[in-house]
Amino acid sequence: MLTFVLYAVSTFAEPIPAGSPLWPHPLSYTAGTTRTSLDPNLLSLTVTAVEPARGLLNSALERFRRQAFIHEGSEMKASPVHSLEVSVSENSELQLHVDESYVLHVPVSGVATLSATTVFGAYHGLHTLSQLISFNFTSGCYELEGAPWHIEDRPLYPHRELLVDSSRHFEPVVVLTHLIDSMAMAKINVLHWHIIDSQSFPAPSRIHPEFSEKGAFSAGERYTWQELQEVVEYGRARGVRVVPEFDVPAHTDSWAKSHPELFPMSCKAALDPANDMVYEVIGELLQDWSEVFTDDVVHLGTDELIESCWNNTLDVTFMAAHGIESFGDLFGYFVEKVVGIANNIGKRATVWDESIIRSNRTPANAVVQIWHGDPGLLQKAITAGHDAVYTPDGPWYLDGLGVTWEDMYKIDPAANLKEAPGRVLGGGGEMWGETVDPSDLELTVWPRLAAIAERLWSPVSVTSQGPDAARDRLEAFRCFLLQRGVGSGPVGGRGRDAPPGPGSCLQLDLLV
Amino acid sequence: MLTFVLYAVSTFAEPIPAGSPLWPHPLSYTAGTTRTSLDPNLLSLTVTAVEPARGLLNSALERFRRQAFIHEGSEMKASPVHSLEVSVSENSELQLHVDESYVLHVPVSGVATLSATTVFGAYHGLHTLSQLISFNFTSGCYELEGAPWHIEDRPLYPHRELLVDSSRHFEPVVVLTHLIDSMAMAKINVLHWHIIDSQSFPAPSRIHPEFSEKGAFSAGERYTWQELQEVVEYGRARGVRVVPEFDVPAHTDSWAKSHPELFPMSCKAALDPANDMVYEVIGELLQDWSEVFTDDVVHLGTDELIESCWNNTLDVTFMAAHGIESFGDLFGYFVEKVVGIANNIGKRATVWDESIIRSNRTPANAVVQIWHGDPGLLQKAITAGHDAVYTPDGPWYLDGLGVTWEDMYKIDPAANLKEAPGRVLGGGGEMWGETVDPSDLELTVWPRLAAIAERLWSPVSVTSQGPDAARDRLEAFRCFLLQRGVGSGPVGGRGRDAPPGPGSCLQLDLLV
Repeated sequence: MLTFVLYAVSTFAEPIPAGSPLWPHPLSYTAGTTRTSLDPNLLSLTVTAVEPARGLLNSALERFRRQAFIHEGSEMKASPVHSLEVSVSENSELQLHVDESYVLHVPVSGVATLSATTVFGAYHGLHTLSQLISFNFTSGCYELEGAPWHIEDRPLYPHRELLVDSSRHFEPVVVLTHLIDSMAMAKINVLHWHIIDSQSFPAPSRIHPEFSEKGAFSAGERYTWQELQEVVEYGRARGVRVVPEFDVPAHTDSWAKSHPELFPMSCKAALDPANDMVYEVIGELLQDWSEVFTDDVVHLGTDELIESCWNNTLDVTFMAAHGIESFGDLFGYFVEKVVGIANNIGKRATVWDESIIRSNRTPANAVVQIWHGDPGLLQKAITAGHDAVYTPDGPWYLDGLGVTWEDMYKIDPAANLKEAPGRVLGGGGEMWGETVDPSDLELTVWPRLAAIAERLWSPVSVTSQGPDAARDRLEAFRCFLLQRGVGSGPVGGRGRDAPPGPGSCLQLDLLV
Repeated sequence: MLTFVLYAVSTFAEPIPAGSPLWPHPLSYTAGTTRTSLDPNLLSLTVTAVEPARGLLNSALERFRRQAFIHEGSEMKASPVHSLEVSVSENSELQLHVDESYVLHVPVSGVATLSATTVFGAYHGLHTLSQLISFNFTSGCYELEGAPWHIEDRPLYPHRELLVDSSRHFEPVVVLTHLIDSMAMAKINVLHWHIIDSQSFPAPSRIHPEFSEKGAFSAGERYTWQELQEVVEYGRARGVRVVPEFDVPAHTDSWAKSHPELFPMSCKAALDPANDMVYEVIGELLQDWSEVFTDDVVHLGTDELIESCWNNTLDVTFMAAHGIESFGDLFGYFVEKVVGIANNIGKRATVWDESIIRSNRTPANAVVQIWHGDPGLLQKAITAGHDAVYTPDGPWYLDGLGVTWEDMYKIDPAANLKEAPGRVLGGGGEMWGETVDPSDLELTVWPRLAAIAERLWSPVSVTSQGPDAARDRLEAFRCFLLQRGVGSGPVGGRGRDAPPGPGSCLQLDLLV
């Protein structure tokens, strides 16, 4: 048996069989040289766990069957690997820092085992196993190359997000759930749901239904309360946290359709920081939404405020009365207030990096999400005591179609950090929705998000080898996605490119 | 009640409520002015039919529930329309010319009725009904505007196809079935499955497994036999005939990977007409495939032969021995032979229009599919006694991205016919796959295929009003598709265009 443990051996990548698109690359593994097989009809699936983990795992195993054994046509065959035993030791909530590790062992014959601390680690292990399995059309068997496999795996960063924007274009629930399925395949574990913005307000509120009634694009481009629950539960069942973003004080034009009184008289581009009703309404909305968005974290935006919106008599008077000397300070006052509102209902807030660029009043318990390109910003956030999420405009903005997967793969969030790199929670791909709707969402997201996913999951010893070493695996992973109905664009070229000509999903380079 | 019967009244289009994307437009209808509602949990669904129609309808009603009632969140409400009774009078096979008519009546309150001769008509009626239903997010009710509705509907043409090409790029079954769902929503009733071509041979044969073993793009880009059955059955259950195309004698390079002996020594661009083995193998393949592709029609291609491929000693000798004086005659000999092979196993053949352009030996029972732009070709085929399918290169080729939906909508297959227009079976959209794979298939097909679908279904009195009169309904239909996870591109612009900027699926014109 060949043994390759990443932290000890540098030539680890070779033995992953070409047909096995292990993506993202696991932390460490050993592989053998035997081709074995397993029969979906004969495979015994057993679970060792207490409820509710037991029930969750049984559902996950049903999904695993559908994802791993995609071809009808297998007949009953001898199945050297005859059982899969899954064990989970703890019942844990899906929250930031939940244990996502797993150990997967697939022998040449006998019992395969998957053990994890939490169901969320087990979900990852099942995705890994499904990537190892391939169908042999000639024999009609499902095969597994390179047995025995022993994989010990866990993520480099705990927060690996995809931002989806349902305000610039409405994204129906059926589209979001399909996307969550694809995210889970790449071990992306956070749906950062940028649910409302200036253009439309599709999010329902039970306390303030008028926001979506008047702020949605149309009568049909809205979510029901139950649909919010459905998305959250769908994500939870697949290990994907749903972190909603309610962007304030700017990016709120759609709020003005029902509540113009929350804005300065002469400007509808930002909520009025001098108006107590603003904080009251934000509090009511967050309280209401906190019952459906169960994640500990809520994103409050704070990006791209046009401060001139606040240059009016009322605000200037308010500043004088509160000893606030600049619009930057007024912004800091606002951020401090809304982060406090979130904290008061038991939520931790995430805010965009303007919160530390233009203010120094942001509470240290807030997570700062870096999007500006300034290379010192991430360090600044960390040094100020914040946890941080790194999603730089340009490299990790999926709406930038000129940014290739190779560009995205080369970004190391911790590259220039000197202090407290452990405070970097992770990062992700940001799918801003100006030109993205259900027709091109997956095509624009994939395969580029996969490059980010590997950066955030796999050890730096793998990803530092750069995109050339990863390309073959990524092409195989793209085939894996396509075979399962996920509309990933080609590997290579710009984002959202069509296939340049006839060819295999595996051989793009050869055919262009 | 307002009464609008198309053949009598010219101002029929107005009363279709803006929110009801009736697409394609029905043959005739009357509508009222009442908004009624129906509760998915209370709606009683009953079927009057004998088996197997009864079972098929019950499955269709389950699909109808999912398609019409897409939002979770409805609570039990009073449901003025409390029942839907579906009746079908005949058990019919899904074949060309099957009766697709239906009569749908939705009262202001009480029992809605859908009656059809066949289940396939009933399927269409259920799609129509689902388009009339909308969700009111404020009341939590499913509503129906313009009751009472009385719709009598049937297609203008019996053959309304989408060609899908799984040779230039592999299209997995999950992609094909999702596409079939979307086709049924627009009452497209034929999947013309261009399953093999020069680039790859993903179709399995039980008699000759070597073709796909060696001719597929890769080990995984193939179909199993059971998957062929799955696609055929999936289509049948939704009223979509699956007509496979096995293109001969050209477009066969992928055959040469396993059977180079079927080609002339010096040319692998066309099967050798002088080689008896060619007809034997074609016969064996067609016989095998006829057991899974149950449609009466099989497409045999015959397009784009490069005759110089046959300019060799063997073929020239063969021509002399058989009194064949030109390569055109040799082509005619080939077409006659393969159409005869299909006939001998009980199939009717469809052939591309080269069969009548370059030969006059094509048996009259063959359907001729017109793709060349020559305006007299369709008449020529009909005058020669053929049934014909009209899918002109340019206007109805979906791979032509510069062709807009408006261009497609303006095409009337029967516009210039003087003789026997009844022999025009229909037409369709041709999604050649050079730059189309699962990532952009639906985006390239929709919404433009919908324009063709209406041309082929709706009365000329509607479609002759042109695209301007249809645009609002098409935008609503696009929203209908998006809400159900079908990735239709925007209405307007080139094929496969991304949304040009933020906006509603309903308001594209306003926002561009």
